[in-house]
Amino acid sequence: MSIVENVQIRRFALPLEEVLTDAKHGDHTHFELITATITTNDGYTGTGYTYTGGKGGRAIQALLEHDLAPSIVGQNAKHVEELYDGMQWHVHYVARGGIASFAISAIDIALWDIRGQRTEQPLWQMAGGASDRCKAYCGGIDLNFPLPKLLDSVQGYLDRGFNGVKIKVGQPDLADDVERVAAVRKLIGPDVAFMVDANYSMSEAQAITAAKAFEPFDLLWFEEPIIPDNYSGYKRIADATGMRLAMGENLHTEYEFGYAFAQSGLSFIQPDASNCGGITGWLRVAEMAKQHNIPVCSHGMQELHVSLVAAQSFDPSPSQSLKSLSAGKPGGGWIEVHSFPIDQYTTRPLKVENHLALASHEPGTGVIFDWAKLEAEHDKHQ
Amino acid sequence: MSIVENVQIRRFALPLEEVLTDAKHGDHTHFELITATITTNDGYTGTGYTYTGGKGGRAIQALLEHDLAPSIVGQNAKHVEELYDGMQWHVHYVARGGIASFAISAIDIALWDIRGQRTEQPLWQMAGGASDRCKAYCGGIDLNFPLPKLLDSVQGYLDRGFNGVKIKVGQPDLADDVERVAAVRKLIGPDVAFMVDANYSMSEAQAITAAKAFEPFDLLWFEEPIIPDNYSGYKRIADATGMRLAMGENLHTEYEFGYAFAQSGLSFIQPDASNCGGITGWLRVAEMAKQHNIPVCSHGMQELHVSLVAAQSFDPSPSQSLKSLSAGKPGGGWIEVHSFPIDQYTTRPLKVENHLALASHEPGTGVIFDWAKLEAEHDKHQ
Repeated sequence: MSIVENVQIRRFALPLEEVLTDAKHGDHTHFELITATITTNDGYTGTGYTYTGGKGGRAIQALLEHDLAPSIVGQNAKHVEELYDGMQWHVHYVARGGIASFAISAIDIALWDIRGQRTEQPLWQMAGGASDRCKAYCGGIDLNFPLPKLLDSVQGYLDRGFNGVKIKVGQPDLADDVERVAAVRKLIGPDVAFMVDANYSMSEAQAITAAKAFEPFDLLWFEEPIIPDNYSGYKRIADATGMRLAMGENLHTEYEFGYAFAQSGLSFIQPDASNCGGITGWLRVAEMAKQHNIPVCSHGMQELHVSLVAAQSFDPSPSQSLKSLSAGKPGGGWIEVHSFPIDQYTTRPLKVENHLALASHEPGTGVIFDWAKLEAEHDKHQ
Repeated sequence: MSIVENVQIRRFALPLEEVLTDAKHGDHTHFELITATITTNDGYTGTGYTYTGGKGGRAIQALLEHDLAPSIVGQNAKHVEELYDGMQWHVHYVARGGIASFAISAIDIALWDIRGQRTEQPLWQMAGGASDRCKAYCGGIDLNFPLPKLLDSVQGYLDRGFNGVKIKVGQPDLADDVERVAAVRKLIGPDVAFMVDANYSMSEAQAITAAKAFEPFDLLWFEEPIIPDNYSGYKRIADATGMRLAMGENLHTEYEFGYAFAQSGLSFIQPDASNCGGITGWLRVAEMAKQHNIPVCSHGMQELHVSLVAAQSFDPSPSQSLKSLSAGKPGGGWIEVHSFPIDQYTTRPLKVENHLALASHEPGTGVIFDWAKLEAEHDKHQ
């Protein structure tokens, strides 16, 4: 028995270096990090977390403090999956996704942190063990960057050692998107993986037109062209254009992922452990992805997802995914290196070597926060 | 212009007379009422609200205070539908249902309260105007009531003037459910509408077995036999048994309702304006129901839903819905008179006359809280 004695919840508002804009959520001036630190009666301390684009953090904190934390205090921390299912039912009437999925994720990740410490395993081993490294691409919230600045930003990704890049699309005039896509492909050359993301700002018809216009530029995927709730609309876009589609960051429940796998004709899935039920939720999605022969990728919090994605398969080449896909194999997933730099507030910012992101070998999740830095930046933002 | 100047959020924990239990959410000792009171620069004050089964209220309050209220202050209160859509997008990344749907509902209802005051119309007129009265049934959270107490409870509904009753099912042994259903039908006779509600505690196979076992007792509907996310499972149950199915209290977005209408083979839909986007959200579901030829009913907060359901059609007979359905017409909806007695904390508890629930004729929503009573009961519960 390892009894949960205390759950401490903290919330930090962390500034972004500049105001970032996408096609659907407007301006981002800061992001929120909400942490859950669990202590047990046998001496373990584990920390989990979730994040937002700047809204909803206090609601997540309130659900954690008043509803979820009290429900796990006194429970056996070893029963991670049972506690996960219990939390889902505990708040089900006000949940089925939304804020509850973010809040449950933070506690679940803390429980996995303790599990890894107790069993002396790093997350990449606990989560599957296929590898300790995986492909990684950089993506920016760069919709409002003028073209020269966009190209500077993309060049920065290459300079930092990445061989995959993603930009936002969804300009009022499609011709502007096409110009930006063409310019980026020209800059990065043919061997760097290239993705675009519309943040569901398009209608089905617009997405089909855009996908056809992007066809000459050899995109690895077109992410969230339309609203994620329109599962079968994704398939119609894929069927009409042959474009590979990706989504997942806005799916929060196993049911939603189930519908996406069954109906959307996706080529990649991008669950985010911060909002799909933590590591337990993410691994359930990874299992579904395996059954559907789709590479499991990720969204945001690169410092954690590197271990989860690496654990699923080892597949180092940037073009491997496409070759594998055409050979009927899922191939390896990619982590997104997101422009919310959570990893910069940990003792081990993301490491990249030979284009691959390296998972931590520390027992537990390997995500150890620099609390003093978090507090200092939070105070500056307030 | 009618500018939103202030939004005041209050939360009340209100005791239930006794501990109530259902098949999926366990024991209820109290419920939560969260109110949003909006004042405008041209002198209007409107109040909206949402409620929970006792969990999540502080998260709803936090989302309202920190994210949603600031987003509507300074906006034109006349633009109710635009503000509704704006709120959905404002918190979309942490929303797509869940806590956000409850929080948005409270503000939307307050805006409709002001709209009614300004236009000097009661809600039943604003919402369609078909009638100022509608059918009403009583439902209890009575799964753990021994049979004699269950029958006393049902007799109480009849004594209060209702000609429709609903009980919980989902006993560990189906034979116990059947015994209770048979006893209730015997008590109420053939002319009172009778529904059962499993709170999605069954598998598809169990639900099919149960629906067949309930067949002799002439149920108007079988509510939430299975998890609401399993849209097509509902249709398989309906097709296999001929049982009329109902759900809606756990659907929070237009997309979810769209899938239920398209895939679930429902005979009744039960949106709850406290968690599907307030009056704006409820009316959008009612419009979909019309297109699908399904009577729109309700869940909870009878003091408000009476006006919304009455506004859609006038159809006073308890058996009218069935006759209309077999004639290919939707017939009239029923409000549920729920065992969370929100109406007892208003200046006008629900009125019933000739078996019909009567809508308020006050301009606005007609739901006027007794704040002193709310505060007194809240303090007792803390």
